[in-house]
Amino acid sequence: MPLIVTGSVGIDTIHAPTGSAEGVLGGSTTYFAAAASFHAPVRVVAAAGGDWPDEHRKVLEGFEGVCLEGLQVRSESRTFAWGGRYHDNMNSRETLFTELGVLDEPGPPVPDAYRDSEFVFLANTHPAEQARLLDHFPERKLAVADTMDLWINIAHPELMTLLSKVDGVVMNDQEAEQLTEITNPISAARKILEMGPTFAVIKKGEHGCIFVHGDDVATLPAYPAEAHQVVDPTGAGDSFAGGMMGHIASVGMTDFFSIQTALAWGTVTASFAIESFSLDRLARLTRAEIDQRMSEFQAAARVG
Amino acid sequence: MPLIVTGSVGIDTIHAPTGSAEGVLGGSTTYFAAAASFHAPVRVVAAAGGDWPDEHRKVLEGFEGVCLEGLQVRSESRTFAWGGRYHDNMNSRETLFTELGVLDEPGPPVPDAYRDSEFVFLANTHPAEQARLLDHFPERKLAVADTMDLWINIAHPELMTLLSKVDGVVMNDQEAEQLTEITNPISAARKILEMGPTFAVIKKGEHGCIFVHGDDVATLPAYPAEAHQVVDPTGAGDSFAGGMMGHIASVGMTDFFSIQTALAWGTVTASFAIESFSLDRLARLTRAEIDQRMSEFQAAARVG
Repeated sequence: MPLIVTGSVGIDTIHAPTGSAEGVLGGSTTYFAAAASFHAPVRVVAAAGGDWPDEHRKVLEGFEGVCLEGLQVRSESRTFAWGGRYHDNMNSRETLFTELGVLDEPGPPVPDAYRDSEFVFLANTHPAEQARLLDHFPERKLAVADTMDLWINIAHPELMTLLSKVDGVVMNDQEAEQLTEITNPISAARKILEMGPTFAVIKKGEHGCIFVHGDDVATLPAYPAEAHQVVDPTGAGDSFAGGMMGHIASVGMTDFFSIQTALAWGTVTASFAIESFSLDRLARLTRAEIDQRMSEFQAAARVG
Repeated sequence: MPLIVTGSVGIDTIHAPTGSAEGVLGGSTTYFAAAASFHAPVRVVAAAGGDWPDEHRKVLEGFEGVCLEGLQVRSESRTFAWGGRYHDNMNSRETLFTELGVLDEPGPPVPDAYRDSEFVFLANTHPAEQARLLDHFPERKLAVADTMDLWINIAHPELMTLLSKVDGVVMNDQEAEQLTEITNPISAARKILEMGPTFAVIKKGEHGCIFVHGDDVATLPAYPAEAHQVVDPTGAGDSFAGGMMGHIASVGMTDFFSIQTALAWGTVTASFAIESFSLDRLARLTRAEIDQRMSEFQAAARVG
């Protein structure tokens, strides 16, 4: 059940109350692929520049099951670079700089060998580019898109076109409110389903997520991390999506119940990603640790 | 396993985007007792004034198992009155007026027949008054206190004394942060346990709650209510506590697992309270409806 992710590779510089990390591996596809790889093989479509460090590639290659055939390196271009600073409570951040680099150029080609991809995740980028990439996967069984406030503001028509083509959408609660002008995340998700998707996952950060699929609703808390366990929230959303889509691809099912189960795997996988800067924690993570934490999460979030 | 609640009876005036209600039954003990009564008999200790309407008493008497022997009516005094306005998203409100009335007088007496109370909930009032009330229950097996930002500010020593005497505390996430200067609610709860209690429940409103009991941690989402289901959030916290303590009293157990189960009953019971102004929805609620919604909640909040 081939799984694919399209999006960015990045070079991140992070400042947080827990420390700083300069020029480390970042980007949506990297976090997604690393997280997904614990559940299913995953293909990557993205572009990097000539400045992309060899050690960053080696980190990604260290995740068994991650295929980098679709990762194009453009020697004359620069890799997307992002700098951010987290504030004391780790729940808000400011962008210090953004250097688009390859993201300001035409999108990456999709290898022919990837045309049979069945589970497609379009990580955040311009919705017109997401729609272009989607067209490369005629055999898809499930396509899910992420988006962000910028595109809701400046590319609304293209976003609406994209929403009419995908099966599911993942966004955070503020974005869902911005898109629908509805505060309640369940009611906002219902409005989003009217725009096309079969389901919507509304991420609430430390408060978990809401999942609306047709008439069915699920709610899931975040993994109960303590303050000292949160080192760097960067990539949490992409790691969540990676764990979720990885589980879906591994079982090959797209019904409400299967996706609801996948949300918990996404939550648990992402809970490790935030324990370090960059992909450091994911790079030394084992499937056994994920399974152990899933058991702990199930016990902690038991209902009645 | 006798359950008792001490706190206020109020006359509420509410303005919300969903409508207005003037001079309706409110107060912490009323919501608590009504919610608890679906799980266990409950005794009330509070005071009202000569202006307390007969129909308000009739509403409370309509809940089977609510004992009003400890509800003192002072004919020369006025009932506590509160007016508030909810904003569009229902998550923030402003106080329009507060008339303390009997709450500005010496606290209510505790009937001798109530001395054998085993499960004690001290709803929000001055912590010195909560401590006075607590002393009336020498046979208590579990005492839990609620508090609010005002007392953290102006009665900190008395609050610390109270915390050294109770087994559990219930407060919202902002109050927990204010008391501990720690943003993360789990870490804040751990700090609160150092102040005396065996457990802390940190309420996060629409985001559910966190429960820390010794070394054990639980997390629970809120019942996933849609926008149209939220008519008036007033009393949600007291209804949650009532459902929680009602379940604990009904099983007579105070271990982590039993209280974790109780949180879900509190959540489900409170989800009905917010569907109307005042106690209107609770007044026509049946235990069968609670059980049905618990099943729905368990399905919606299933983990992995």
